[in-house]
Amino acid sequence: MTEKTQPGNYFEDFTVGQQIAHATPRTITEGDLALYTALYGSRFALTSATTFAESMGMDSMPVDPLLVFHLVFGKTVPDISLNAVANLGYAGGKFGVPAYPGDTVTATSKIIGLKENSNGKTGVVYVNTIGVNQRDEMVVDYVRWVMVNKKNPSAAAPETVLPDLPGAVAVADLNVPFTLSGQSYDTALAGSPYLWDDYEVGEKIDHIDGMTIEEAEHMIATRLYQNTAKVHFNQHTQSQSRNGRRLIYGGNIISLARALSFNGLANAQYVAAINGGSHTNPTFAGDTVYAWSEILERTELPGRTDVGALRVRTVATKDQDCSSYPYKGADGKYDAAVVLDFDYTVLIPRR
Amino acid sequence: MTEKTQPGNYFEDFTVGQQIAHATPRTITEGDLALYTALYGSRFALTSATTFAESMGMDSMPVDPLLVFHLVFGKTVPDISLNAVANLGYAGGKFGVPAYPGDTVTATSKIIGLKENSNGKTGVVYVNTIGVNQRDEMVVDYVRWVMVNKKNPSAAAPETVLPDLPGAVAVADLNVPFTLSGQSYDTALAGSPYLWDDYEVGEKIDHIDGMTIEEAEHMIATRLYQNTAKVHFNQHTQSQSRNGRRLIYGGNIISLARALSFNGLANAQYVAAINGGSHTNPTFAGDTVYAWSEILERTELPGRTDVGALRVRTVATKDQDCSSYPYKGADGKYDAAVVLDFDYTVLIPRR
Amino acid sequence: MTEKTQPGNYFEDFTVGQQIAHATPRTITEGDLALYTALYGSRFALTSATTFAESMGMDSMPVDPLLVFHLVFGKTVPDISLNAVANLGYAGGKFGVPAYPGDTVTATSKIIGLKENSNGKTGVVYVNTIGVNQRDEMVVDYVRWVMVNKKNPSAAAPETVLPDLPGAVAVADLNVPFTLSGQSYDTALAGSPYLWDDYEVGEKIDHIDGMTIEEAEHMIATRLYQNTAKVHFNQHTQSQSRNGRRLIYGGNIISLARALSFNGLANAQYVAAINGGSHTNPTFAGDTVYAWSEILERTELPGRTDVGALRVRTVATKDQDCSSYPYKGADGKYDAAVVLDFDYTVLIPRR
Repeated sequence: MTEKTQPGNYFEDFTVGQQIAHATPRTITEGDLALYTALYGSRFALTSATTFAESMGMDSMPVDPLLVFHLVFGKTVPDISLNAVANLGYAGGKFGVPAYPGDTVTATSKIIGLKENSNGKTGVVYVNTIGVNQRDEMVVDYVRWVMVNKKNPSAAAPETVLPDLPGAVAVADLNVPFTLSGQSYDTALAGSPYLWDDYEVGEKIDHIDGMTIEEAEHMIATRLYQNTAKVHFNQHTQSQSRNGRRLIYGGNIISLARALSFNGLANAQYVAAINGGSHTNPTFAGDTVYAWSEILERTELPGRTDVGALRVRTVATKDQDCSSYPYKGADGKYDAAVVLDFDYTVLIPRR
Repeated sequence: MTEKTQPGNYFEDFTVGQQIAHATPRTITEGDLALYTALYGSRFALTSATTFAESMGMDSMPVDPLLVFHLVFGKTVPDISLNAVANLGYAGGKFGVPAYPGDTVTATSKIIGLKENSNGKTGVVYVNTIGVNQRDEMVVDYVRWVMVNKKNPSAAAPETVLPDLPGAVAVADLNVPFTLSGQSYDTALAGSPYLWDDYEVGEKIDHIDGMTIEEAEHMIATRLYQNTAKVHFNQHTQSQSRNGRRLIYGGNIISLARALSFNGLANAQYVAAINGGSHTNPTFAGDTVYAWSEILERTELPGRTDVGALRVRTVATKDQDCSSYPYKGADGKYDAAVVLDFDYTVLIPRR
Repeated sequence: MTEKTQPGNYFEDFTVGQQIAHATPRTITEGDLALYTALYGSRFALTSATTFAESMGMDSMPVDPLLVFHLVFGKTVPDISLNAVANLGYAGGKFGVPAYPGDTVTATSKIIGLKENSNGKTGVVYVNTIGVNQRDEMVVDYVRWVMVNKKNPSAAAPETVLPDLPGAVAVADLNVPFTLSGQSYDTALAGSPYLWDDYEVGEKIDHIDGMTIEEAEHMIATRLYQNTAKVHFNQHTQSQSRNGRRLIYGGNIISLARALSFNGLANAQYVAAINGGSHTNPTFAGDTVYAWSEILERTELPGRTDVGALRVRTVATKDQDCSSYPYKGADGKYDAAVVLDFDYTVLIPRR
């Protein structure tokens, strides 16, 4: 008789180069899409209507790339971050072939860096995770780093290996799953007349609306992703924690901020890359999330005149509207209201 | 660089005759149907089972007409009622071809009336909205009127235009999407032995059951409809409002009352028309909703002996059971417990 | 004019041998599967991915048997347990042909036993319910017994009839819907290396994780099953009850405990039988549910070397972790933290 349950890995359990095949393949269905809409209120036309997807040259309505990301991320939790202290950052997130309802995603990870913290109690694990569909085609490929507890503080520190992380996903790595021809793209149906050409680098957009999050909502979402991190679900133990409450999975804030960004970025139909991101403060049920965005780069895509890319920073806040674009103070520290600093690349039609 | 976000229209932005194409086409899926069942608990057999729909001569399980209504209504919010003070009423709501999972709905509206209020700060906008499917066939066509703020109180009042609104949808405008042949209709499976012939004009039915609404539930439903009205979602700002709380989208009360009406009207399989309706008091999370109905008319349908129509008034209350059929006082004012007065037409098999 | 609403049956309305055809056939869709995942967080690979189901020789991802059970159970509530005091137990629960998205289930029940309680105010009703699909193939067949109020305490007591209930479903009655060939079964994807051969009778497994339940969650789930029992939904009346609160439908605890059992029983892909079970204490919103399991029997299946059966007792608790395997005291009474004692049979691959 052996111990059958999995307590999750600790910092000393990881080695650079280690490969992990994650459990529970997941078929994405129209049910997942409906729940995604119901949980965040996304209104981007491409992921809302088959007819609109067809007008953009796709066979049918694709799965929102952020939903793909959350599903793949969720699979990594039991192996990577069950004993995590904090999810520190993301980098190099590329979306590959689009996913459609009926596709099945699985995930594998490789440990690409390790650094024990000076306190000897925790360390940072750098992980490259690749999600593939049932044809083994890449759907998402990203790096995240997380602070993980050591089980045995006296375990020897591993050699420090820091991966070389890109500042942003290269234009050559952006996959454009659609093609616009002639006048097929309907800006009225999309919800805004503003296309790639209309945005300027440095432009800031307050997305205006705020959305309050309930316990049931973030738990339903996080379970949909089969993400098992204890801090999101167990009030009995969380009541004894520093915050006294369940923490909201950060992915919920990303998706909420993206949904809010529709008001100002309605034609930014598709997220093609996650360049970086951090959850700068925790969020809890009862918090109201707002968002604003800054256009960081406006990029032409090789060989394409129908669509361009915008690199965007979307900042989410809690219980503070974004009319003043809250971000960092003079000391370089994030404003206490800022909960998310998300750097990503969207695809948007050109004139 | 222009202001990219849409603040919504104010009273002075509307003109009679104005046409508005609303954003975000929406493909309805089986995921939406599952959520609709989960959010209201509807048990009508036609919209619950493909086999039952087939026994009524349909190809498969249609989308509940009220779900179609909410989805189309939701599209109009960013253009019509983002700055609304109150949704005042409905009239002339006709359901056209039934929607099935896989269909995509879009919506357009025409402003058919305007009347500035005597305070000069608000006005009433009358809107005719038409929802169509991907073949441009009408799925729903209705009028609503809403009180909207003026942005500039000193803006000149428009000429008052009041549309001619029908008291009830004409029998000739009722679409019957099913045909009953022989003994195919199973009243045991439908949940009640009472058919069209068994109801009498003036008959009142207490639907008995009550359902308490949670914040997460009404927000999940309202986001499913891509309805963006701020008052439903933002506790941070609503805490400063007169009620101090988020308001529940009235469509949730309509669907809840309809689901409760199963107990007493189980064979009223399909809503064919919305003759009128008003939300007589606001509802909030924590309220328990009850309902009762009165049969207003019993109508034969031209050329049909298999099915008839009932015009029904369903009244919903909060935190008060309906055994005494609460409605209006001697002064003609609604009882404080009444939250919905809904006048609609259902299709129900005949003996 | 007759009374159209159904108040539900009372103890004196039942007779032994009585057959009841329950209302509202229900087509199961991918939307239901997504909600089931989102509500409980189940991670068993067979019911999560079409590809994994194919690797086990099935055409596609089957519906979780417990979801089938809840849907069939829900249909019986308006006829059997609307006036129930308590749901006392289950026995002889067999799952027949698997259900797939698109299948429609209906339910019929037969009263197989009656026993008036000595107080003369209530009685126990034994019910055998059979759920079938659209081809009239059995999907689930089980017995439950429930304590029901008498409407008229002076109504004569019926002859006591106690059905002969099996202690456990016989091996010959276990349906195995899949076949494993060669090396097709991937334990890494399934989430655990432990197969049938690795479990020992008497082995206890603490499933570690805890999940807090919100009002919105249990009501959304229970409505999804079209279960109408008033105690789950109506805070207005429940506030006057002994508990002062809405009671959580016990089926939610069964599904939650099963989802938690993944950590320790990940290869137990399919529930083949419910041997017995009781809800030993009520649960309410805010409770955090934990679970542990004991292997009761390890059984070979006739003619099968690819798969075996484990009879398992899963015990769920509230607000108490299961590291000490809480169950019954020396007096034979359940620990106050125990809310579910569930005896069932799972199918699990062999080496």
